[in-house]
Amino acid sequence: MRIVVLAGGIGGARFLRGLKAAAPDADITVIGNTGDDIHLFGLKVCPDLDTVMYTLGGGINEEQGWGRTDETFQVKDELKAYGVGPDWFGLGDRDFATHIVRTQMLGAGYPLSAVTEALCERWQPGVRLLPMSDDRVETHVAVELDGERRAVHFQEYWVRLRASVDALAVVPVGAEQSKPAPGVLEALAEADVVLFPPSNPVVSIGTVLAVPGIREAIAEAGVPVVGLSPIVGGAPVRGMADKMLSAIGVETTAAAVAEHYGSGLLDGWLVDSADTEAVAEVEAAGIRCRAVPLMMTDLDATAAMAREALALAEEVRA
Amino acid sequence: MRIVVLAGGIGGARFLRGLKAAAPDADITVIGNTGDDIHLFGLKVCPDLDTVMYTLGGGINEEQGWGRTDETFQVKDELKAYGVGPDWFGLGDRDFATHIVRTQMLGAGYPLSAVTEALCERWQPGVRLLPMSDDRVETHVAVELDGERRAVHFQEYWVRLRASVDALAVVPVGAEQSKPAPGVLEALAEADVVLFPPSNPVVSIGTVLAVPGIREAIAEAGVPVVGLSPIVGGAPVRGMADKMLSAIGVETTAAAVAEHYGSGLLDGWLVDSADTEAVAEVEAAGIRCRAVPLMMTDLDATAAMAREALALAEEVRA
Repeated sequence: MRIVVLAGGIGGARFLRGLKAAAPDADITVIGNTGDDIHLFGLKVCPDLDTVMYTLGGGINEEQGWGRTDETFQVKDELKAYGVGPDWFGLGDRDFATHIVRTQMLGAGYPLSAVTEALCERWQPGVRLLPMSDDRVETHVAVELDGERRAVHFQEYWVRLRASVDALAVVPVGAEQSKPAPGVLEALAEADVVLFPPSNPVVSIGTVLAVPGIREAIAEAGVPVVGLSPIVGGAPVRGMADKMLSAIGVETTAAAVAEHYGSGLLDGWLVDSADTEAVAEVEAAGIRCRAVPLMMTDLDATAAMAREALALAEEVRA
Repeated sequence: MRIVVLAGGIGGARFLRGLKAAAPDADITVIGNTGDDIHLFGLKVCPDLDTVMYTLGGGINEEQGWGRTDETFQVKDELKAYGVGPDWFGLGDRDFATHIVRTQMLGAGYPLSAVTEALCERWQPGVRLLPMSDDRVETHVAVELDGERRAVHFQEYWVRLRASVDALAVVPVGAEQSKPAPGVLEALAEADVVLFPPSNPVVSIGTVLAVPGIREAIAEAGVPVVGLSPIVGGAPVRGMADKMLSAIGVETTAAAVAEHYGSGLLDGWLVDSADTEAVAEVEAAGIRCRAVPLMMTDLDATAAMAREALALAEEVRA
């Protein structure tokens, strides 16, 4: 079975771990969000791709969900001693090595997709990890700070400001001009199932879908497209998806997110058992819906979620 | 008193520490060798400039004479795990931060001289540290390896091969087209004394002198030029200067190095007390010479050497 998964960072990575356990023989391709990529200290940092790679490759800091295990911060301390910023982005020494290798390869002319493949040769994530695009796409968030409206990089909004102010708009700068990375459209054309993990619907999956051609390729694949709600009981399970949903005028409910994707894109939707009342609303919108436990508390629970998603896909197909 | 010092790495840096102690009120400008600069992992590394900066700024690893104190090697280990080389150049995590800042600034368009000044704002070396040139000059060494003659980067010869094979030629690639960095010619024009520390006469001081205009500016300054022999008792005090001297056909003796610089450039020369017999030979070549202890065993001994050099300069001037 060929499964294509659109993934952001922590939520997507953890779901993928469950999916691998649930479908060990499946051929899994991950289309990773690169809208939150950022240039720091002259280095290209791809937080979502790295979170997937480290999580599936056994190098992740399990507690925080991002960054490397057994990490140290000598480089960061030194940069601070040089007065070179920003200091709000927590790059560790081990993590720096990844960005150094990536930046060197990009500088040598390799596209991000080839670089990602090379990095994955070490990590052996057990999935084919593709950036959504080799072109630069950068998610900006419009905010009002000190009475003035301005746009900040998504990471600045998320990490520095900790989403403490309202997001007025979310713009994937460069998306319109971007092309899907090599392999992306092919993987979708050959997919048996497409899954949306419980990732941020706006800045993770939404950004992947903003690359022209990807949304159309999913629709044209003619296979079941099933998503898992990142909203449980009217709040994001983790992160600050509610801020992002408000920015695009979508309510923070499991049903509203499904309707935002829409029946033109989505065939099936899993909501948490706590949101059973949402099932009827989602089905009324033309999307098959089931309520199951959606908390990724451990690998077993996550694998069960993945099995439910695959079961719903088969139900849709039948 | 305005003193200009041409410096390589460890020998130059340690001598400068003695000079600062010997002449605390002097205005010292250092023209640093950049011929051993190397690009590693896409980062610009300037070993000699950094050794001077770290040594005078209190950040040097005293035992090895280069690199940072309390160093760790997480980035290096990770690069190795990625299979990205070379692994023979020992960059530590703290050191990496310097190269990251430098590379970022160079990428932003600042010349190396401005970058060096910015880095020195943190280290406060107590001297004005100038790269010999903002242009790329790279010292290559011709060697015979496996029966074939080839040119390797100086660092590859020095660090990877540990000078284990003969150097057939030493070429400062790019030197002919290079220009002295801003401030270099001005410092020489305003100097009261010019000193050559016991640095490598070929790949350190020789490379600085290979930048068109520097040798002429020293001659035109019309001030005493005094050097200290890096050769004691027919062998280099440290490093592998003998290999480099052989490559340019100069004997490994204190007198031969003085004669290699020549009386057109050098006014005074200090040899070690062990080389008293060299004094007459050097003086016969038209260079005033004294035999004094030249082992930089501690700060006092090094300051005494610097005082001897300044005294010899005054003798020359009188």
